[in-house]
Amino acid sequence: MPDSMKGACIFAQSGGPTAVINASAYGVIKTALRSPEITRVYGAANGIVGVINDRLYDMGLEDPRELALLPHTPSSELGSCRYKLKDAGEADADYVKILETFRRRGVRYFFYNGGNDSMDTCAKISRYLAAAGYECRVLGIPKTIDNDLCGTDHSPGYGSAAKYIATSVAEICKDNGVYDTGGVAIVETMGRHAGWLAGSAALARLAGAGPDLIYLPEAAFDMESFIGDVKAVCGEKKKCLVAVSEGIRCAGGGFVSESGVSSSDGFMHVQLGGIAGTLADAVRQRLGVKVRGIELSLLQRCAAHLASKRDMDEAFAAGEYAVRAATAGENGKMVALRRAPGEHYRCEYAAEPLGIAANNEKSVPREWINAAGNDVTREFIDYALPLIQGEPERPTESGLPRFARLKKLPPG
Amino acid sequence: MPDSMKGACIFAQSGGPTAVINASAYGVIKTALRSPEITRVYGAANGIVGVINDRLYDMGLEDPRELALLPHTPSSELGSCRYKLKDAGEADADYVKILETFRRRGVRYFFYNGGNDSMDTCAKISRYLAAAGYECRVLGIPKTIDNDLCGTDHSPGYGSAAKYIATSVAEICKDNGVYDTGGVAIVETMGRHAGWLAGSAALARLAGAGPDLIYLPEAAFDMESFIGDVKAVCGEKKKCLVAVSEGIRCAGGGFVSESGVSSSDGFMHVQLGGIAGTLADAVRQRLGVKVRGIELSLLQRCAAHLASKRDMDEAFAAGEYAVRAATAGENGKMVALRRAPGEHYRCEYAAEPLGIAANNEKSVPREWINAAGNDVTREFIDYALPLIQGEPERPTESGLPRFARLKKLPPG
Repeated sequence: MPDSMKGACIFAQSGGPTAVINASAYGVIKTALRSPEITRVYGAANGIVGVINDRLYDMGLEDPRELALLPHTPSSELGSCRYKLKDAGEADADYVKILETFRRRGVRYFFYNGGNDSMDTCAKISRYLAAAGYECRVLGIPKTIDNDLCGTDHSPGYGSAAKYIATSVAEICKDNGVYDTGGVAIVETMGRHAGWLAGSAALARLAGAGPDLIYLPEAAFDMESFIGDVKAVCGEKKKCLVAVSEGIRCAGGGFVSESGVSSSDGFMHVQLGGIAGTLADAVRQRLGVKVRGIELSLLQRCAAHLASKRDMDEAFAAGEYAVRAATAGENGKMVALRRAPGEHYRCEYAAEPLGIAANNEKSVPREWINAAGNDVTREFIDYALPLIQGEPERPTESGLPRFARLKKLPPG
Repeated sequence: MPDSMKGACIFAQSGGPTAVINASAYGVIKTALRSPEITRVYGAANGIVGVINDRLYDMGLEDPRELALLPHTPSSELGSCRYKLKDAGEADADYVKILETFRRRGVRYFFYNGGNDSMDTCAKISRYLAAAGYECRVLGIPKTIDNDLCGTDHSPGYGSAAKYIATSVAEICKDNGVYDTGGVAIVETMGRHAGWLAGSAALARLAGAGPDLIYLPEAAFDMESFIGDVKAVCGEKKKCLVAVSEGIRCAGGGFVSESGVSSSDGFMHVQLGGIAGTLADAVRQRLGVKVRGIELSLLQRCAAHLASKRDMDEAFAAGEYAVRAATAGENGKMVALRRAPGEHYRCEYAAEPLGIAANNEKSVPREWINAAGNDVTREFIDYALPLIQGEPERPTESGLPRFARLKKLPPG
């Protein structure tokens, strides 16, 4: 494959959104529009589904001022999907249609922004195109609030979710302490298999208002120990603030919230949630205290108004890097973020094999959780704190966020 | 009573916090510390309970730079209470202790910041002191996110909660629209008897991402109509965003969420909540679509990071006005906010009799709700929109909010 290859590019978004996923979109689109190797910049509607069905938007027709608002616009502006590609060979129909779209549109660059399932999708497409003899450079750009992607120090999206959680937990802590009668508040974060989000609640302590107890999926959850923990804290100060991951598991490995299963997504991930309510009921019954369960739900992944500036900048840079790497010849890679050695935080970017992330999950190291399994250690704080730094501008209009308004026009 | 009366003042906070209740605290404290008529400025711990028990803080000993951070500090910084004073005559013990505290500390000014129950408390104390022949000026300062206080155009605290709700609903709307498979999200706001908070979700439409359906307590709720409404919206666009008040009621008058009753507070208010889950279950069972219930819970009243600047300024001004009015001779009054006539929004302040607010509740006018009872009208928007304007500074430290750190020292 020549170093300099001319052609169109497609950018698509997949999986659950983050507060800054559109910052990566802007990084790709802005850089691609200025790249001499890239002739047209398409966005696919709803991820790979839009590529399969040739539902594309011509990003070159958008107002640059609206594109510049993308970093401040939550959710996946082009639409997302949770569509799992079958292995080529097993079922080729999707791949054939993808290749058709690529040929029809002269696509030589494909950028896919998502989590580990999406990196798997990238890897499959990359292999299929190579086997078909179609020249195309496929680059994955990481995103996930869960921060469970392997092969990268952290994932764009995590820092903003962590900042949202830490800030909200600090505010809830102030509120929960307001009555002399005390009370327990249990705040539930997302995080199916990893406790990065729940652990970020600990950062609230730097605001002087943090959680008393934190439970992560990486440490086995025991209801009796939990009740004992809450009782001890309440005994000391009449009130107690708990942060808990939706994914906490019993020693046997089953989700504590399994009984609250309501539906599942296309990847057969169980939709969790409701653990705050479950634990609140247990505390109420066993300890007879006033207790409130609070599920941060979608808010933690769509609160663009509380994004971390560093996270937003890095999300943009990851998109920009993907385009630069692809036009320079990289293929079948994922953009990885690396924490440069040294006292002061600095992020570097690299292209790693897609397989490094595909279908794996990065957990919080057990040694970053205390022995009792009800808090994180200083190592966790040192890891997460740099990622929530900085307050981005917040474009507003009439007192409300001013989101990007794209025309989303089909290719002319 | 002489116009110019010298003495100490006590300021206290009561009821549920708001994002800007401490802006009123700062308005009182800052103004009182500079008032020649006021010799000492005390804050009471946990509202009237702190007055009864002589648990006071000397505000004159605080660092002025920390006091200046109060407007950006959520929750009730001095602590709150939900303690209902019995009628004097029925049980005098509390009043005797309040009078003892007042005499001991030379208190001639009492400022109480709260909702309608707190205005009732103010009225009772004012009457008791007058009957006892003790000269003291009692002023109530309104606050409530519910905005259900009579006698004032709106209550400090509402604008910030409305801004939080509108912003969060806009962000959730973006997120809920992300998958091509569609889905329903049901966002629950507070508002026991009044729909001001649920209605504020409509403001999100100005960000281009608003709710499809809004249900307020003022319009009788019917489950069949609700299911039909959601089905119709989903039929048209595959997805649906609902905003609903915790206090919605059936035609018979009972709370729809009554089954979710978990506890009650000292005023015998039922603690509601859980209606989002109830409605989500109904939609899932009846329509078989993916649905998510989201309860904004405490977040809507403690999210100081998303306060309305106008609300914050007015909360401060209400506190300042209370001190000015009291030192000028007013007694037994509540500070009322009035919307000045004219095209452009402007707020004026007045002192109204406490009875105007005590134990009454201001509902959303039925004509500000559409005939179908599933949305608000233009009148509602025109009323609420001015209240969410402006973005205050957000003091931060290490990427987290920098709250006021008070010493809370007892009187020297």
